[in-house]
Order: sequence, then C-alpha cells, then structure tokens
Amino acid sequence: MKNNQFAIRPTKFDDQIKELKEIGFLDKDNSSETDSIKLWKSFLSKAFLEAKTSSNFEEKLRTYMATETQNLSEYLDSATNVSVVAFYNVALQLLKFNPDVDFSFDAPLTAMKKIQLLIANHQNGYFTTSELKSAWYWLLATHNKDGQTFIDSLASKGYFTTFYGKVSKPLLFNGKTLPVFNPHKLIREVVYVESPQDSDHDGKRDLLKAEILRPYETEHGLKVPVLYTASPYNQGTNDETGEKLTHNVNVPLTHKEPNNLQYKDIEYVAKRTELPEPRVINGETKKAEETFARESSYTLNDYFLARGFAVIYMAGIGTKDSDGFRTTGDPDETTSTISIIKWLTGDLPAFTNRTDNIEIKAWWSNKKVAMTGRSYLGTLATAAATTGVKGLKTIISEAAISNWYDYYRDGGLVIAPGGFPGEDADVLAEETFSRRLQPGDFHKIEDQWDQQIKDIQVGQDRDSGDYNTFWDARNYHKNFKNITADVFMVHGLNDWNVKPRNVERLWNGIKYNGVTQKIILHQGQHIYINAFRSIDYSDIINLWLTNELLGIDNQAKEIIPNVIRQDNVKPETWTAYKDWANEDDDTLKYNLSDDKLTTEKSETATASFTDNLPKTDFEFYRDDNVTWQKDLLADNAKLLNTHLTFKTAPLTKNLLLDGKIKLNLQVSSSEDLGMLSFQVIDFGKTKRLNVSPSLLSKNSLAETYDWREDDLREFTLGKESTAKMITKGHINLQNRKNNYKVDELKPNIFYNVTVDLQPTFYNLQANHQLGLIIYATDFGMTVRGNQNIKYTVQLDQSTLIVPLHK
Amino acid sequence: MKNNQFAIRPTKFDDQIKELKEIGFLDKDNSSETDSIKLWKSFLSKAFLEAKTSSNFEEKLRTYMATETQNLSEYLDSATNVSVVAFYNVALQLLKFNPDVDFSFDAPLTAMKKIQLLIANHQNGYFTTSELKSAWYWLLATHNKDGQTFIDSLASKGYFTTFYGKVSKPLLFNGKTLPVFNPHKLIREVVYVESPQDSDHDGKRDLLKAEILRPYETEHGLKVPVLYTASPYNQGTNDETGEKLTHNVNVPLTHKEPNNLQYKDIEYVAKRTELPEPRVINGETKKAEETFARESSYTLNDYFLARGFAVIYMAGIGTKDSDGFRTTGDPDETTSTISIIKWLTGDLPAFTNRTDNIEIKAWWSNKKVAMTGRSYLGTLATAAATTGVKGLKTIISEAAISNWYDYYRDGGLVIAPGGFPGEDADVLAEETFSRRLQPGDFHKIEDQWDQQIKDIQVGQDRDSGDYNTFWDARNYHKNFKNITADVFMVHGLNDWNVKPRNVERLWNGIKYNGVTQKIILHQGQHIYINAFRSIDYSDIINLWLTNELLGIDNQAKEIIPNVIRQDNVKPETWTAYKDWANEDDDTLKYNLSDDKLTTEKSETATASFTDNLPKTDFEFYRDDNVTWQKDLLADNAKLLNTHLTFKTAPLTKNLLLDGKIKLNLQVSSSEDLGMLSFQVIDFGKTKRLNVSPSLLSKNSLAETYDWREDDLREFTLGKESTAKMITKGHINLQNRKNNYKVDELKPNIFYNVTVDLQPTFYNLQANHQLGLIIYATDFGMTVRGNQNIKYTVQLDQSTLIVPLHK
Repeated sequence: MKNNQFAIRPTKFDDQIKELKEIGFLDKDNSSETDSIKLWKSFLSKAFLEAKTSSNFEEKLRTYMATETQNLSEYLDSATNVSVVAFYNVALQLLKFNPDVDFSFDAPLTAMKKIQLLIANHQNGYFTTSELKSAWYWLLATHNKDGQTFIDSLASKGYFTTFYGKVSKPLLFNGKTLPVFNPHKLIREVVYVESPQDSDHDGKRDLLKAEILRPYETEHGLKVPVLYTASPYNQGTNDETGEKLTHNVNVPLTHKEPNNLQYKDIEYVAKRTELPEPRVINGETKKAEETFARESSYTLNDYFLARGFAVIYMAGIGTKDSDGFRTTGDPDETTSTISIIKWLTGDLPAFTNRTDNIEIKAWWSNKKVAMTGRSYLGTLATAAATTGVKGLKTIISEAAISNWYDYYRDGGLVIAPGGFPGEDADVLAEETFSRRLQPGDFHKIEDQWDQQIKDIQVGQDRDSGDYNTFWDARNYHKNFKNITADVFMVHGLNDWNVKPRNVERLWNGIKYNGVTQKIILHQGQHIYINAFRSIDYSDIINLWLTNELLGIDNQAKEIIPNVIRQDNVKPETWTAYKDWANEDDDTLKYNLSDDKLTTEKSETATASFTDNLPKTDFEFYRDDNVTWQKDLLADNAKLLNTHLTFKTAPLTKNLLLDGKIKLNLQVSSSEDLGMLSFQVIDFGKTKRLNVSPSLLSKNSLAETYDWREDDLREFTLGKESTAKMITKGHINLQNRKNNYKVDELKPNIFYNVTVDLQPTFYNLQANHQLGLIIYATDFGMTVRGNQNIKYTVQLDQSTLIVPLHK
Repeated sequence: MKNNQFAIRPTKFDDQIKELKEIGFLDKDNSSETDSIKLWKSFLSKAFLEAKTSSNFEEKLRTYMATETQNLSEYLDSATNVSVVAFYNVALQLLKFNPDVDFSFDAPLTAMKKIQLLIANHQNGYFTTSELKSAWYWLLATHNKDGQTFIDSLASKGYFTTFYGKVSKPLLFNGKTLPVFNPHKLIREVVYVESPQDSDHDGKRDLLKAEILRPYETEHGLKVPVLYTASPYNQGTNDETGEKLTHNVNVPLTHKEPNNLQYKDIEYVAKRTELPEPRVINGETKKAEETFARESSYTLNDYFLARGFAVIYMAGIGTKDSDGFRTTGDPDETTSTISIIKWLTGDLPAFTNRTDNIEIKAWWSNKKVAMTGRSYLGTLATAAATTGVKGLKTIISEAAISNWYDYYRDGGLVIAPGGFPGEDADVLAEETFSRRLQPGDFHKIEDQWDQQIKDIQVGQDRDSGDYNTFWDARNYHKNFKNITADVFMVHGLNDWNVKPRNVERLWNGIKYNGVTQKIILHQGQHIYINAFRSIDYSDIINLWLTNELLGIDNQAKEIIPNVIRQDNVKPETWTAYKDWANEDDDTLKYNLSDDKLTTEKSETATASFTDNLPKTDFEFYRDDNVTWQKDLLADNAKLLNTHLTFKTAPLTKNLLLDGKIKLNLQVSSSEDLGMLSFQVIDFGKTKRLNVSPSLLSKNSLAETYDWREDDLREFTLGKESTAKMITKGHINLQNRKNNYKVDELKPNIFYNVTVDLQPTFYNLQANHQLGLIIYATDFGMTVRGNQNIKYTVQLDQSTLIVPLHK
C-alpha cells in the first residue's frame, strides 16, 4: 500500500501544542510531564476509547508490540525513554498496519517511508517530550491503512462526542475542521425560494424547494457556511418515461446541405421577457413549516455535516415540489441554480410554504457558499460560477460538463456520452422532470410539458449534429470570464461520459480570471473519488473549504498542488504538477506511413477502409459495444477492413502525453457525406489499472461516530492486457471548418481536416507503441448506419501531433 | 413490478382497531368519526410527517390525484364519501407507484391485483368508516415500490421517534415489532465469556470476547431477547497470510491405494481431555468496562436493533481479543459458539475484562436467543443447534454448511468451493485467525499456531480427498438428532460456494425432530436476501422472531409457508410449497444413447472422451474458468474431445425438477485412477435471471429513521442465453462405494458408479432440452493436471434419474 496525503498543513510547534490542548490530548495533568514514557501512556490512554478502566487499558496495551520482543505494556513498564522505533512500531499498529504483511519491528521507519507515512522530527533514537508531543500530533494527522487520518478514526470511535453541545464554533486540527457537531441533532428544514423566472409560463415566479441541514448550534447563534449541491436527480427520476424518449441510433448518417453560417447567425442572445411580479410578502418568520427525513445525499457532504457546515440540496426548476420546467442546462436553469445562493446572501426571498407568502430568511447563514457534486451537479456548479454570483466562494466541480455540445455532440456529429447511445437533451430533461412524480401537480401541466419536450427536440437538432443557438445557450465557455469563485476541478482521464475536453476547457478558460484553480485528474471513468484509500481527497476539500468558507488562513491555496494526477502505470501513485494541457507544451510530430507512425518523411501513398460489416457481425457489435472496442484494438479479422491502424516503433523512453493530441488528415469519402472517428492507443503488454475501482470494504469509512458511512475503494491492477485506448475524437467531414458551418463534400475528392482529440495526461511507457486507429462508425457513440462508404487517407499529407509535458 | 408478501398476518377487525390506536393512527379525536372523508384526512395528516402546518399539509394533498380529474385536496373538499377507487389511487401514490408507469387512475384495483398488493374488504364502491379503518390498516401493512411496508416507510421518516423513551415493551403491528427504541441510545458493551475449553492449550479456559448492543430501556427493567451472530470474520481477517496458504490446484490426480475402511475405523470420537479449572470469581458487577464503536454488522440485525432486540456478535476461539485457536468447524468451535448462549441463560460466567475475574451477568436477557448470519455464520448457527443448547429457540441459517466435507470435498475428490480453487480448511483457519492482528498477543503463540496449521493440513488430507476422522469431526449431520431449536433455512439454488446439498441434508435431516422448519430457496449464488424488492424477507423474519423470542402468539409458524421458492423463469415470482426434495417424489428415467437422453431403450454402444488439452488451451481455461464454463455449454470446438453431451428432445411440457438428480454410469478409465464431473443443463434460448442481483438503489432501505441503511436489490432478466447449468456433481472413480473406502481401479475395465448430483428445484420449460455433460477436469473446482486419460462410458448401461415435484 502507498499513502498520498496532500492536505497536511506544515504547523509550528507552538501551534501543535495549542491544537493538542484544544482537542484534549494535552491537559493540565500531562502538559508539563517530563517523563516521556508517562506522556506517551497518557496519549495512548486517551486514544484507547473502548477501555473504560485501567485494567482494560493495560490489556489493550498488551496486544501491541513495541519492539521485536516486548509488548507495549512491558515496554512502558521497563523503558525510561520512548524510542523512535518503539513509537513507530506502535504507531503503525494504531494505523492498522500489520507486521506480518506491512512492516517489521526492527525497521518501522523503512516501512513508514515506503508507505509514505509522516515521520516526525527527532534528534536521536529517543524522543524528547517535546518531540513526542510533535510526533503524536503528526500521528493524528497521518492516514491509516483504511484511508482515514488517525484523528478521524478516533472520531469515528466517538472521540469528539464529548464536545457535542459544548462548542460554539468549529474546532480545527492541522488546518481542517473536526466533527464536533452532533449529526443526530441537525435541523432539517424546507424553504421555497422565489426565483426571478417563470420557466413554466404560468404567470408566477417559480418557487423552488430547498432542503437544508444545519447544525443545531445555529439555533443558538452559530453562523455557518453552506455546501450547496444542485442536483436535478435529487427529488427522484423518471427512468421509464425517459427511456421511452431514447433515440434510435441505428440510422444512417445523412448528407447536410452546405451553409454559410457565421457565429453571429447562431449566437444565443437572451430574450427580454416580461417577468411576473414577485409575490407580495405576507409576514416573516424564523421557523420553517416543512421538514424531511432522508435527503438524497453526497457522502462528501455527509462528512461535513458534523464539522460545522450546513448542507443544502436543491433540484431546481421542473422538479418535485418546485415550479418550472427542465431545460437541460440553459440560462433558465442557471438562474434557478443560483437563486438559493441569492437567498443565502439576502438578495432573494424564500417562503415557508407555497401558499401563504410568509418569508423566511437565512438568518443562520454566514453568507459563504461552496457548490459540490459530480456530473450534472458539477455542471450546475460551473454554470453558477459563470454568473459571478455574490457569496459563491468556490465550486468543487467533479466530472462536470462545461459545454453541453461537448456532452451530446462533437465535430458536427451526434456523439453519445459513453454508455448511453440515444440519449440527448430531451431524454435528460424528461428523466429529471420529477414534477411527474406528483400526479396532482403534473396533471395541471401535462400538455405544456409535452410541448416543452418538443421544443427541446427541435432545438437539439439530432438531424444535423451541428452547433446552433440551442447549444450556444448551453455553452458555459461564453461566460467563463465572469467566474470570480475559486474553482476546484476533479475529472477522470478515462471519463467517456463527460469527456475530458469539458474540464480542459474550464481549466484553460479561466487562467486569467484571477481566481485560484486546482485540478485532480484521476484514472477513473465517471466516478466520485472521496472514498479512495490512496489519496486524502476529503482532507484536501476540508482544508480548501475551511479556508474558503470559514475564512481560516490555513494556507490551503499554497499547500494544495495546482494539478494532482493519478498515474496510469503505478497503482496508488498521485503526483503534483504545476499545470496541465498547457498550450506551450512541446510537441512530437508523427507522419503516417503504411501501418506506421514515424518521424521519418513518409512516401506518397493512400490507405482505405470501408465502413460496412456483414449483417450478423454488424448486429453482434451493435448489441455488444464492449466487445467491439476490444476487437477493434485487437485487430480482429471481422473488423479488419473497417479501419486503419498505425503504430510507432517501440518507444525508447517513457513519454508523458499532456494535453490535446491533434490530427491533420487529408481524406476522401466515396459519398457526399462522411464521418471519421479516431482512437489513440497505448500498445504494449502490461498489467493496467482496472476500469472501475475495486471495493476494498463496504461501509468502512465512517464520516464520524454513529453516522453515515462510505465504501472504501481503490484502483487496482487487472490482468495483463495488450492495449488501452488513451483518447479519441470524431468529426463530420462536412464540418471541416467548425461545428456550425456545413461544408460541401464531393465524393472521392480529398479534403484537409484537423481534429483535436480529447485531452489526456498519459504516461506511455518505454517499449510500448503509440497507436492511431482511424475508422468511422463508433458503435458506442455515433449513429450506426452500416453504410457502404469507402474512406481514403492520403498518408503523406497526414500527421499526428502529440503534446508532451514540459 | 410484482410484490410478494408472506408475512402478512390475518387480523380481526377489533385487533386492527386496537393496533391502530396503539400506534397512534386512531386517537380520541378520530376514533368515533362518522364522516369517512374526515377520517381519511386525519389518517393522511398523520402520515404526511414532513408537513408541520395545515397550509403545508394542504399543499401536499394537492400533489396527489384522487381521480382522473381531481387532486386529493379537491376530492376531500368535494366528496361526501371515500370511494374505493380514490382511496387506492392515493394508496398507490403513497406506495410510490406512478400513473405513468404502474397504474391508471380509472382502474387502480386492476394494478393492485397485478402488482399483488393487498386490497381491503369493501361492500360497495365506497368505504364505510369501519372499512376505511381496515383499509388504512392493510395499507400500512402493504409493501411499497421500494420493498418496504408503508408503516416501515413512515418509520424511516420518523413516525416512531415520538415513542422513544416512552415504551416499556415492544410495540407490535400486524404481528411484527416496530422500531420504537432509539438506536442512537443503544448500550454497547463487551464481555469476556469463559468457555469450557482450552483450545490453545495454555492451561487456562478460553476467554471469548462478545460485543453486545442492547436497547437503553434494558437499563430500566426491560428484558430482551438476543439475535446472536457468531462470525469468525467479525474481528478482522488475514487476507494476505491466508492467501499464502492457498494450495496449488494445477497438479495431477494420483492413484490411491485401495483400503478396506469401515465407518467405525474413521469415526470421530471426542477425546476426554482434562479441562483447566474455571477462574475463581473475584466479585460481581452489573456494569461493563469496555465498549466499542462500530461492530461489523449484518443489516438484518440492524433492522431489529430499534425493535426491542439485543444483538450480539462473537467471533469465537482464535479471534482478536479472544483466546484459543481456529479449527474450521470442529467440536471445539461449536463449544466456543454456544458459550455466549450459556452465559445468556446463566449457565456460564463472563467477566468484565481478561484480568480481574469480576463477573458480569446477562441480567437484561430474557434468556431467549436466535442465531443469524450467512455462510460460516449460518454454519455455526447450525452447529450450535446440534448441541440442543438451552435458550436457543431458533436459528436462521443462511447459505450454511452442514458438513464441511460437502464444502471442501466431494466423492473422494478435493472439490473447491466455487470461485475459490485451492482453498481448504487450513486457509480458512488462517484467514479467520484474527489474533494475528494483535501482535502483542500473537507474539506469545506464534509457534503453537504454526503447529495448529500443520495439524489441520495433515487432518484435511488433500492428497486423498477421502472422508476421514478430521472431516467426521466437522460433519454436523451426526448430531442433527439433537436439534431442538426451530430452523429457518435460506439457500441459493445457484450457490456453488456452499453447495445446495448442505441445506438439503439439513432440511431432510431434521424432519422427525419435532421442530418447526422453514426454507426459502432463491435463485442467487452465495448472497443475503434481506434487501430484495420482491419478497418481504425482513418482515418474515420479524414475524418469526416475534413469535420465537418474544413469545407472542402471532401464528408465525402457520402463516409462513414451509417452502418458498423463487422461480427461475419469471422474475419477482416466489411460490409456496409444502416440501422440497422429498424422497417420495416421482422420477423420470432417461437412457443415454448416442448424444441423446431418451426414454426409449438404448442400443449397445460406448462413447469416449480424453481429458487433455493442448498446452495453450489448457492455460487459457486454467486462467479463465468463467469462459471455460461458457465454452463447455456451447460445445466450443476446443473442448469437443474433452466431454460428452447428451440432450433430450425438446420437452412437450414444463417440468419442475425437485431434489437430487441421480446418475447411474458404467465407465472405464485408461489409467488406474480417474475422476468424473457432471453437469445437468437447461438448453433453450431464453432470457434468464442474471447471476447476481441488480442494485436498484443504493442505501435506499432505511432500517428506521436516521439509522443504518441497506441497498435495495432484485434479480433481473439478462440478455438471451442458450443454456444454463442446473446442477453438477463429481466423483473419484476409486470411491465407488463411499467417500472413505478406496476401491481398486483397473485400466480399461468398466465399473458401475452412482452419483447424486447437488439437489435443485428447477422449472424447466416446455421446448427446452434437458442436457447432461460428462467430463473430468472441472476447471473451477477439481485439480487441473491436464492428464492424458481416456474415459469410456457404456451408454446402454447408464441412466439419468430425474425427480419431479409431486
């Protein structure tokens, strides 16, 4: 096992002592202790929470070994000083490491270093009492074998329950907040925010339901910040009716009439519409009228609920208990998303119910908000940030869409999110339209909703796949310049649902905004990473939010690296970088020659393939996209004529591919239409990380004592494989200039096309080969027409440009 | 969706009223209400827990439709009587069904019947107030779309939190206990039971740690029963050192020297050993000295923790914080297992710690115990039952081993539990030996433990695979006659880890004990079924335990069917039967002829196969057992010479195979050694249930308000497949008489062998074909020597006997 902790805050000795006192490890009895053995024993006695008597405590001591021959009880009885070796032998056991597997009693520090655990300063082989206090401090801050700091593991055993009801502000340790607020006494209340919009056109401003969880202490004067998760899924989903709208992708690609569109022709410009008057406020109260039992929660938020943060979930327009219609990411949804933030800062009213217009203010709010959540949730956080709304200090956008065109389209083609062929903006609108789950409400608006879906279907324009006004309204890049919140991004380099371009554009799009930006790039697909063993994600976010929302000067912005990248070769390896996908990166240019990628000049030559399969093969791959992808990489005979594969010679050294691989191609189609797909491949026999993380232990990660739990997970190596896709891309040959200008395509005429593939950050090992596959139908993402179209590439006029990390 | 509830208790009207009063739905305000509309509204107002004001309640009413055109608020305002249709329209919505998917407002009762939901009696289209009370009662008892009764869904919203601290005994509804005890106030305490054994031979009786959770109310006089889970995994496991002991299965089968053993030669007879004196008791207390934070829990136990039951986890000899050595299921482990029961009934002492000999009694115990848990846990429940120990009223043995030989061996062969080639009794002993996790303890006993593992390795005798004294000591069948507890069994018909023979022998082995026995046979592998949507397992167990442990006469034994079988064809279909695998079942006899199973007489003929593959094929299948099984059923060319396949003609009608399929074979081997494996197959193209249940929603099944949660799951249909294994079996050709007598095997001489395959309960559909595959190396279970052995079957002297359900 290898530990990676990025959220450890360098702390001066005096501050260590102060914190140890605050959390109760140092008290009047042991603060001035001069006997290091007695001091250590007093620390241990406070950590062994299960033992209520000295007999029991002594028994527990006997279960630990301090040296190769002495158990901890014997050692404490006989030694006169605490040896560094004994301390770390015991520390490793306290951190759940085992001498049969993880370390040996004669060299605990060797193991500590190998596992990458924190070792405290010491002048010689024995700790002074000061050094020991410091060593205990750092032990508390160190992760154990289950991916939790020792202090958090003590919290999960009840260490901080004695603080419940006795604290009037958050308690900090090593720059991060501790769980000292009783999660079973949380206030759960519902308010209805009046949002300045009328998205269902009923002549009234939309009321939006918000579910609030806040510490009980707010009832007695504590002002708290908010973690706000905008989740359209939160109030339920319509899986069946959404499924019904799913589009058939077994249709042919069609010729598009060329146009001469310029951006201004398709640009989205907000319409000025008359907004209904706000409701007349009919009184005010501090007490909510509605509660709820179990919110649909994000475990990262659960972790913060005992740590002095409020959490709010809001599903927004068109969801259960709220007004309005779903729109899949347009400005109306952004307005909906930020309305609760405006309420929290006092700029919008909310009501206790939908009828009486009794206002309720966020009197407990410290007016500082962070947004959290993955996928659509992170997308709305990004959308909210682009408004520059006051009070939104930071967003943590995980696997977020930054442009809906990059989610459902690419290069003038309909390109499905990986795993969801046939999904589109209309399907997602229907799926998240949870007003349907309340028949009494839905009954009133059924017809209007049908019309809304039809409008979305017209707007999304599956026929062309082009960028248009509909998509321009859903492109957050346009408003990146307005972002004033600090942005913490998290994305999977293997996320083919929300593809990496979405985060790369955000990363590179706000560099001159003057905000702090951080990014973690992991090797997962479309997942959360807050319960991984090898990285301290929850701690990082704790450090970050303690700084952003509590205004504590904990140096979070300096401590957390700008870029943290999980390695794709070595498990449990996370590395800090200064930047990612920087446009000043060096590049490596490969020419296409025969079946090779080469830096030599290539001979004049063409290569062709035909995008057509026998019916049974076509149907097989249509129904099994996973096998199709496997067979494509393996050059399976069935697929041999449907693609071209080019490979470099085995590499002489490791390459760190960093950013967008670009392809310049001269190509012809045998018809007046055509599409191309590309995959860049790592060819080489090796064990690679599994696609999905492995479950290490279910429910083993407690957010604190007797509270919610998460499953501990980690990426592990799978069986040996011969190839892995690094990145991919697609283009409609009629969109050579851009995504909205449709070009003519004459059969059998060569055209130049340039394609930026999805950005990556990939460690390609020596002796492996870099590969490029050119094909047309992408069974998992494009339409599947099985059309008899021949594509020909002018090899000597085609190049692959690979960016390398500087 | 289809609902199946077996735990609904027929309840007289007067009792319904009494219960509605007890749980607060009827009170002094509404008990004598004569207006059915007002009565309904009062019920609804008590059910809408989230609404704290009448405005909010009215808003909630408006979100439900009562008829095709009126919402519930409008209906209540305008109607003079509660129509049955309106009631069930609303009821379906309360149960989370949706009119767009599950029902239509003009015919809710049609949907109720289709979904198999409970409909209350009514004389005509409108409910009288009495009928309405009854209808509300039955609604509370009915499962919703998320697999929970409506009353339990209300509990999860906090309905019963107002009962916390105010009840002095369990509260019942429809014969089952309700969650009225605050789970956050549970007393968590540790005691050390002195077990009458010295399994680590240190001259002292073994002290065994038990973790107890009991309702706070026990501190004030409440006596409670115990759900006891004996789990050797509970205190941690040694995955790495266990893995190291795993045996190589890529070894040849070897010839065994014939013997003339009789049972008495190998029978296990308990040795009389001198037992150390009990500890001298040095005082007594009612207060424990040690606590714990988060037990490793079974969610079914979690469900009972708020319902007036205590729960105890004990890991037993050789586990962390306990004395003794692991033995993998021998009588010493049984003694260890029941020691806590003897403490609960006052027959053994326990101490507050391991040092001071201060006794602590189970003064809060009502002296009634049930055992719960799956696999090894259920096995120990079975073992405990075979002692007839006082106080053990019932065991719920899920996927339990009833004879360890049937777990690690079969027919004179080493046969791995499915998925664990190379595992054996020694590996399991090491894995569960959690004393290793406490180096201070382990240090003292390291050498003795090494010796214990060596002794187990000698005893298990992997070389022969024969039944011997070691296995006889671990065969619970011998003591079935002593079982006095009622036995509730649960087993997967596709469990190839703990194979179905284990449960069939228990089921048929205690029929004359005079105890009540129940069994649920599901279509899963080695899984829990307490969070399935389509069966009310938790309710069934609640009904059962309320009867067994609280002594409530709720007719549990009459209400719960003897046998409940999940159908393998139709999803969400569970059917009641009187018996399973009854030896009086009818049988169908098939002869083997060419490649056919036929009821005609077969011609004189032989058929042969050779158990040998080219090296690359062998290595491929060795490393990928799943593909091997798939290819075997598909008659993949690579495997063609390594097996024989026989099929019936397509069946003209459905057959319900019930019990043990038997094979009579005349066979020869080309060597003086040999093994045969058999699979019975359902050949026929159809959609079949997936091997593993699908996750419907994570954490959606709350055990009660603000308490632990479970993932809701269900078996769903997978893609179409052409074949499925029904059952299998194995035999060493040198064990033709039994598992301990080794016979001579002369090369190329024909011998008669008879094999009972694992029992089944299988719905084989018309037009499908029943198949039999005869082969030797079972890549997932036997040794894999890739030996060049030719096997020949005398077809006309071989038959397959298939038992059919009467």
